[in-house]
Amino acid sequence: MLAEESEMPSPIASRPDAPPLPRLAAHLLDRLRREGTRVHAITNAAAQAFTANLLLAAGAAPSLTTAPDEAPAFTARAGALLVNLGTLDAERRAAIPWAIATARAARLPWVLDPVFADASPARRELARLCVAGEPAVLRLNPAEFRALAEAEPTPEALAAFAVAHETVVALTGPTDLVADGERVVRIANGHPLMDRVTAMGCAASALVAAFAALHDSRIEAAAAALLAVGVAGEIAGERAAGPGSFQPAFLDALHGLDAAALSARARLP
Amino acid sequence: MLAEESEMPSPIASRPDAPPLPRLAAHLLDRLRREGTRVHAITNAAAQAFTANLLLAAGAAPSLTTAPDEAPAFTARAGALLVNLGTLDAERRAAIPWAIATARAARLPWVLDPVFADASPARRELARLCVAGEPAVLRLNPAEFRALAEAEPTPEALAAFAVAHETVVALTGPTDLVADGERVVRIANGHPLMDRVTAMGCAASALVAAFAALHDSRIEAAAAALLAVGVAGEIAGERAAGPGSFQPAFLDALHGLDAAALSARARLP
Amino acid sequence: MLAEESEMPSPIASRPDAPPLPRLAAHLLDRLRREGTRVHAITNAAAQAFTANLLLAAGAAPSLTTAPDEAPAFTARAGALLVNLGTLDAERRAAIPWAIATARAARLPWVLDPVFADASPARRELARLCVAGEPAVLRLNPAEFRALAEAEPTPEALAAFAVAHETVVALTGPTDLVADGERVVRIANGHPLMDRVTAMGCAASALVAAFAALHDSRIEAAAAALLAVGVAGEIAGERAAGPGSFQPAFLDALHGLDAAALSARARLP
Repeated sequence: MLAEESEMPSPIASRPDAPPLPRLAAHLLDRLRREGTRVHAITNAAAQAFTANLLLAAGAAPSLTTAPDEAPAFTARAGALLVNLGTLDAERRAAIPWAIATARAARLPWVLDPVFADASPARRELARLCVAGEPAVLRLNPAEFRALAEAEPTPEALAAFAVAHETVVALTGPTDLVADGERVVRIANGHPLMDRVTAMGCAASALVAAFAALHDSRIEAAAAALLAVGVAGEIAGERAAGPGSFQPAFLDALHGLDAAALSARARLP
Repeated sequence: MLAEESEMPSPIASRPDAPPLPRLAAHLLDRLRREGTRVHAITNAAAQAFTANLLLAAGAAPSLTTAPDEAPAFTARAGALLVNLGTLDAERRAAIPWAIATARAARLPWVLDPVFADASPARRELARLCVAGEPAVLRLNPAEFRALAEAEPTPEALAAFAVAHETVVALTGPTDLVADGERVVRIANGHPLMDRVTAMGCAASALVAAFAALHDSRIEAAAAALLAVGVAGEIAGERAAGPGSFQPAFLDALHGLDAAALSARARLP
Repeated sequence: MLAEESEMPSPIASRPDAPPLPRLAAHLLDRLRREGTRVHAITNAAAQAFTANLLLAAGAAPSLTTAPDEAPAFTARAGALLVNLGTLDAERRAAIPWAIATARAARLPWVLDPVFADASPARRELARLCVAGEPAVLRLNPAEFRALAEAEPTPEALAAFAVAHETVVALTGPTDLVADGERVVRIANGHPLMDRVTAMGCAASALVAAFAALHDSRIEAAAAALLAVGVAGEIAGERAAGPGSFQPAFLDALHGLDAAALSARARLP
């Protein structure tokens, strides 16, 4: 991977030799399709099927078990772990710390999606304990960031949170913001229908995990994944007649996504 | 809401000043889209994603956690609660009474969908205990009504059950019947493919809950929701090539539903 | 059923009076549509909605509860049971032995799908205990067969395993192999997109269970179900623009599948 990395310097910020982010996203999708990278996802009940289908459409190989005595074995054979706190039942609550411990012991990247950390005090506390496990990337929305960081989701606040918790913060919204303390990437792709389909954000987090399995720079992996999701969402939005037909169109678009579409459509203000 | 209600008298029965049910349904959809009303749904595992997608397509904001220590917090911040008894595991069994208690304490309407109350004695007993919690609306099919009421689902039996249990009974079938003891509304919309898609009834119950959050007359809210679901089903049935394409077409149709389509298509015998 | 069976001799192997497998598959689909055969499926969380939708599209009536104190009642009223070991939580682990015991006591066929038996030692052990309960059919993929049988999935190894465990082995892959110790059926239908949609194999197992409820020859029931799934997959593959649109197209194709399409497309090398 190091040799490959040396041909793929940072696409972000001012480095003159950086290939653009769209090319990195296309490169990582190609590798997913060739290598069938495994991602273990402990995710919420409403997101499980869509998350698995997004990972399969992107070329990855998902597993989903939430059983505490099996999650470590499934994590250990994967390239990355996703922990999503939605529909947090007793089973998931018991499985999550062991899965995180397995990922850390095996030096696998893991991604935290603190769904609805703003909706219940118990959920927020648990999300904070998870953040202490140093996720490679924290993918969330503005309300969840406010609950965790007790601050407005400005680029500066994201960067400060990333530094304090040794993570990368990937905030999704009309413009996505990805921050690691040194750099901030802005991605302005996407489509309004993405807010009318359940588990779109959850599934985006799964692609962040898949890309983090393949690329050492966590901020670049996260930004490339959000770009791929945003561009696939735009293509789907043009084809869909509403939120129902948007979902299959999104998976079709992600499955067929290539460097040309990514480069032509990327909006990185 | 009271001012708004005074402009929206009962669309049902013989009141001369009643706006028609289609106009009420369109009005409530408009409000959902504007206000993003929250609905907390404790529903079965096969229905969770479709229920969330139906609520999102209609403009509402769903949450779905089944954890006993979180369901009260999620219910308290919602406008209505749905309790669906499908795939009734230990987690749901523990969460349901606390969620119902939260809704009652906060005077939020809650809707009961006693899925498969006819299939296991344990399920029927639990459904009866839930009915004792006085749901705003009980949405079920004929087999479930027979199991709970030990009577054939005639309009008279529905009305008697509604009075005895201080609820509204919304029975779905080729012709839906909604009864509160004083009135009976009949809705003859829908499409045969609705029986070939899992969780259509469950998801209809979720829209009943969303409308009940916005409209004080429970019989009108329930009837308007079933009308919207039936008309969206008819539109989807015309576009679909089978039960697979029916599901996205249904969500598209519900997302785009307006007063013109509701008025033109409503069949209220 | 015996009379009907006598008109439907084995479609397989060299019997001169055997109707072809496509005709048997069409016949069993017709019966499912007429009789609405009940199938109880204890299946993984990501597969529940798709499994229910596949069974409904094929004409069957699914139920899905995983609760240990309800699974026996649901199994007893069904025509067949499916046990799928994906997302094997405590609830499923407790329910599965009681559901199997109920099926055996009632002489109902049951189908085992040992999902990811290759991925965790705990899962493999549990799968072996389930095999000891003599499933009518064991539906799996090559990696799962290797884990359970400690042998390469050759026709001979499948037959030996089937004889040793008094079951039928139905191995899916580019060419499906179904073996009972006397015969081996090969089915070369299907489409590459089937590997890019979650729960396709799980859902195929559910149709095997539905057909086993109606047809005494377990190898013929299994082969007919895999043929129907493979042909529906081919039709869907021709219509789909990717893995997203493949899923609804597959359900549409299965819903409309008839003897003409099955006969024209069957590839039984």
